[in-house]
Amino acid sequence: MSGTQDLPVVLIHRLPTFNFFFKSRFHNHFTLLNPPLDSPDSIHAFLSRHAASIRALVAVGPTPVNSQTLDLLPALEIVVCSSAGIDHVDLLECRRRGLLVTSAGNAFSEDVADYSVALLIDVLRRVSAGNRFVRDGLWPQHGSYPLGSKLGGKRVGIVGLGSIGSEVAKRLAAFGCSIAYTSRKKKSAVSYPFYENVHDLAADSNVLIVCCALTDQTRRIINKDVMTALGKEGVIVNVGRGALIDEKELVQSLLRGEIGGAGLDVYENEPYVPEELFTLDNVVLSPHVSVLTPESFEALQDVIIGNLLAFFSNKPLLSPVQLD
Amino acid sequence: MSGTQDLPVVLIHRLPTFNFFFKSRFHNHFTLLNPPLDSPDSIHAFLSRHAASIRALVAVGPTPVNSQTLDLLPALEIVVCSSAGIDHVDLLECRRRGLLVTSAGNAFSEDVADYSVALLIDVLRRVSAGNRFVRDGLWPQHGSYPLGSKLGGKRVGIVGLGSIGSEVAKRLAAFGCSIAYTSRKKKSAVSYPFYENVHDLAADSNVLIVCCALTDQTRRIINKDVMTALGKEGVIVNVGRGALIDEKELVQSLLRGEIGGAGLDVYENEPYVPEELFTLDNVVLSPHVSVLTPESFEALQDVIIGNLLAFFSNKPLLSPVQLD
Repeated sequence: MSGTQDLPVVLIHRLPTFNFFFKSRFHNHFTLLNPPLDSPDSIHAFLSRHAASIRALVAVGPTPVNSQTLDLLPALEIVVCSSAGIDHVDLLECRRRGLLVTSAGNAFSEDVADYSVALLIDVLRRVSAGNRFVRDGLWPQHGSYPLGSKLGGKRVGIVGLGSIGSEVAKRLAAFGCSIAYTSRKKKSAVSYPFYENVHDLAADSNVLIVCCALTDQTRRIINKDVMTALGKEGVIVNVGRGALIDEKELVQSLLRGEIGGAGLDVYENEPYVPEELFTLDNVVLSPHVSVLTPESFEALQDVIIGNLLAFFSNKPLLSPVQLD
Repeated sequence: MSGTQDLPVVLIHRLPTFNFFFKSRFHNHFTLLNPPLDSPDSIHAFLSRHAASIRALVAVGPTPVNSQTLDLLPALEIVVCSSAGIDHVDLLECRRRGLLVTSAGNAFSEDVADYSVALLIDVLRRVSAGNRFVRDGLWPQHGSYPLGSKLGGKRVGIVGLGSIGSEVAKRLAAFGCSIAYTSRKKKSAVSYPFYENVHDLAADSNVLIVCCALTDQTRRIINKDVMTALGKEGVIVNVGRGALIDEKELVQSLLRGEIGGAGLDVYENEPYVPEELFTLDNVVLSPHVSVLTPESFEALQDVIIGNLLAFFSNKPLLSPVQLD
């Protein structure tokens, strides 16, 4: 646990269910502190023992970083996250304590964008539903399967034009979709039409791709009004966070046919998915896997290690989170 | 059935299971002959009665156009197909009789290309399988679902760079795939690497997208050797025709794990799909629906009507099939 005294110390902060896969490359640069996870008491004791040496912490996956944790780490200066979304980190508390925070940056952006395109085509063209139709042996009985709806020409509204949203836009433009977006602010480098709010964007769109960060401002940003504005043929794809959508209203809107379909990778209470959706053929459900492929682990390691090295050598962080 | 004597006569040739949807627009331009489909005898009698006036025929969907049909139509000059693939038309016989043949051209190309991309991402990222995992209620029990493989960076070999293949290439390039192809001949207008044969293409590819026409030259072009060359991680997507692949060998290769996965919209004996595939999570099966969306019907009508009008006014056909 110690021994290579010259290397900076980094605390691995993780839930027992989330492994830290990357040890080998990290060992070349850092002394990793990996607390025992058998009980809260033993974590507590471990952190108390090492607290004075811990300036940096890597938060693995969705492991919460709250004031309780931070209270145990008075020397902490930086929270390095391994995820793109960092709603599990109490950013207000981090700001209050003057901590730096970094995210996974765009290490996953392409994977999430790829998956969101697949969810969209799946809903429009009924890929998963057609797959069930074949596997259930229904094709010979029914003779044919209803055609889906064309992707090209669809007006796609992107909710959050960050690195994921930009990758989504690039892909869907190649399919002949027209792109518009809403975001905290208008992006001067981008020519897609900007909407001040998601309601107006929904009213002008056939499809919403939800890929913004979950914050107090974006929680349930997709509410009943937005769904009504999107309309009966409208499709929602959510690869951000479950709580970006009012899930109860989404379920009701889908059951009543008030929106046209949904492709969902994230949910309010994962791994629990509203069972009413299981019977709907215009809904594609996936178990929060859009985020990542093994091929992207390398890029993830690069950004985590890069942020830590930058911190310890007083250089600019690679993917700092703005705590404004 | 007659009455508007000034309009050219067009025979609607269809199977009882395939409707001819487009009547209203056609009635403005043509006198449609729509034989009764209750028995072969009544079709025969109808055709004998009208044969002398029938210079043009519209073959709806996969309705066979063989020498038996052609023998009944001695005045026929053109066979206008409503499909992109025309393996249901006896082209040798058409050439022997000096007939013109047209296909649906690229009316469907975007739809097929969209669907083939969805099938590919589905196989790589396990979208349909993850959907089953959620709907079967397994997520809370298992805790997580295996990650798929990244689309970006994959070497994609396109088998048949016609209008569909070109649309596929354009889309997959936007995902960061590298594209190569095989085709009857090298396309001078295209910079993607060309391979003389599908075996060498497979050996250099992670993915094969099969979207060429079915002819005597391409029947079972994806054989055991090609699958071996593609290798254990390789994925095959077929949106062309079932008989382009040696289906028995494909099933065996998938069952033995000798290729990595498959996304199949077409099969040798539709609507029958090899049931051994129903248990495999790395296979996505769809019921021959990649071809079309309602939005593309308009484009299809345009090309069918355009070909007929061109024929009757001695102008160049919009989408002639080369009978070489």
